[in-house]
Amino acid sequence: MAALRGKFIVLDGTEGCGKSTQARLLAEAVTKAGVDVLSVRDPGSTRVGEQIRAVLLNPQHTEMSMRCEMLLYMAARAQMMAEIILPALGAGKLVICDRFVSSTLAYQLGGDGITAKQIRDIADVAIKGRWPDLTILLDMPPDRSLARVRREKDRIEQRPLAYHEQVRRNYLAQVQNDPERYRLVVADRSPEEVHAEIVQVLIDAKLSA
Amino acid sequence: MAALRGKFIVLDGTEGCGKSTQARLLAEAVTKAGVDVLSVRDPGSTRVGEQIRAVLLNPQHTEMSMRCEMLLYMAARAQMMAEIILPALGAGKLVICDRFVSSTLAYQLGGDGITAKQIRDIADVAIKGRWPDLTILLDMPPDRSLARVRREKDRIEQRPLAYHEQVRRNYLAQVQNDPERYRLVVADRSPEEVHAEIVQVLIDAKLSA
Repeated sequence: MAALRGKFIVLDGTEGCGKSTQARLLAEAVTKAGVDVLSVRDPGSTRVGEQIRAVLLNPQHTEMSMRCEMLLYMAARAQMMAEIILPALGAGKLVICDRFVSSTLAYQLGGDGITAKQIRDIADVAIKGRWPDLTILLDMPPDRSLARVRREKDRIEQRPLAYHEQVRRNYLAQVQNDPERYRLVVADRSPEEVHAEIVQVLIDAKLSA
Repeated sequence: MAALRGKFIVLDGTEGCGKSTQARLLAEAVTKAGVDVLSVRDPGSTRVGEQIRAVLLNPQHTEMSMRCEMLLYMAARAQMMAEIILPALGAGKLVICDRFVSSTLAYQLGGDGITAKQIRDIADVAIKGRWPDLTILLDMPPDRSLARVRREKDRIEQRPLAYHEQVRRNYLAQVQNDPERYRLVVADRSPEEVHAEIVQVLIDAKLSA
């Protein structure tokens, strides 16, 4: 696992797919192997970012435009990048991030005509060109993943199932279009099985190359 | 003044240059001439935008990165554009906006290496390509304009004078580089004199052409 030092791994997928659990299990495994880990969630993880997150996910904000939403995610990401991710990578830590630009390319793509190129160009400024070394998509049907969300659903989660099905297709398209930087892991299994496959994916990815 | 229907005018300049006063005087004059006016301030003017404004200007947020700051301004702008400016323009109103993309091109340009092209490209997405018909720069030396700010200074206003002098140079460069869409008005005079010149600028600009 030493090859993971200074690397940047994203876990992504629809709500309820088990990202947080898998991020925790991965952090524990890697820490045991002697690698320092920074675990973060996007949006959030900084004082400014958590305030942006609260504006974004407030179920009352039904009037928020898709472009505002997209730019708020980018702003929170820019803060997290500058304040904690870039310093951690520079210090040789493995950064495990729950969601990232791949979420914007799934949730905001096509909304109000927003294109993938627009999202990628804006993201490139927000993250200062430091893209993740690997993004692992935890894939499962959204009707099953959303049923796992037990707390009150936030503004995005409350959108109709057809929206979340499009989000899933947008994730799958990313994996298909960029096999170098994405891996798909079937998430509709036990946490232990999913964790084992994620570890294997990281070993096979040979990130030190 | 009928030529101003459906037009989009921005008043901009360093803190304390008299933008708000001039926006009010202009709105009054144009309303008297029978043109419906929407007056807005950027960032803000919407429920979501005012929350973003509060995050942006909170003096405690000294850790905010320049890219996060720039993207938060863009997010607030995107919301104002979608929710109120584009509908008002479509209804034939004159929109008078206190600050806009020109502020970002003055205050965030060069911060953490941010380029004018990056700002313009991101703004083009945020504002859906609807740039102002005319931006009027109210120019005066920042040491004199900042002295006019009587309330507690916000996070941006608290920056050192050298920063505000660079901001002024960035404004002046915009006027110089795009004489079609910018006009400079010397702001260090009585509000009545400045107002009279702004009205004359709008007449001379022949915005209906």
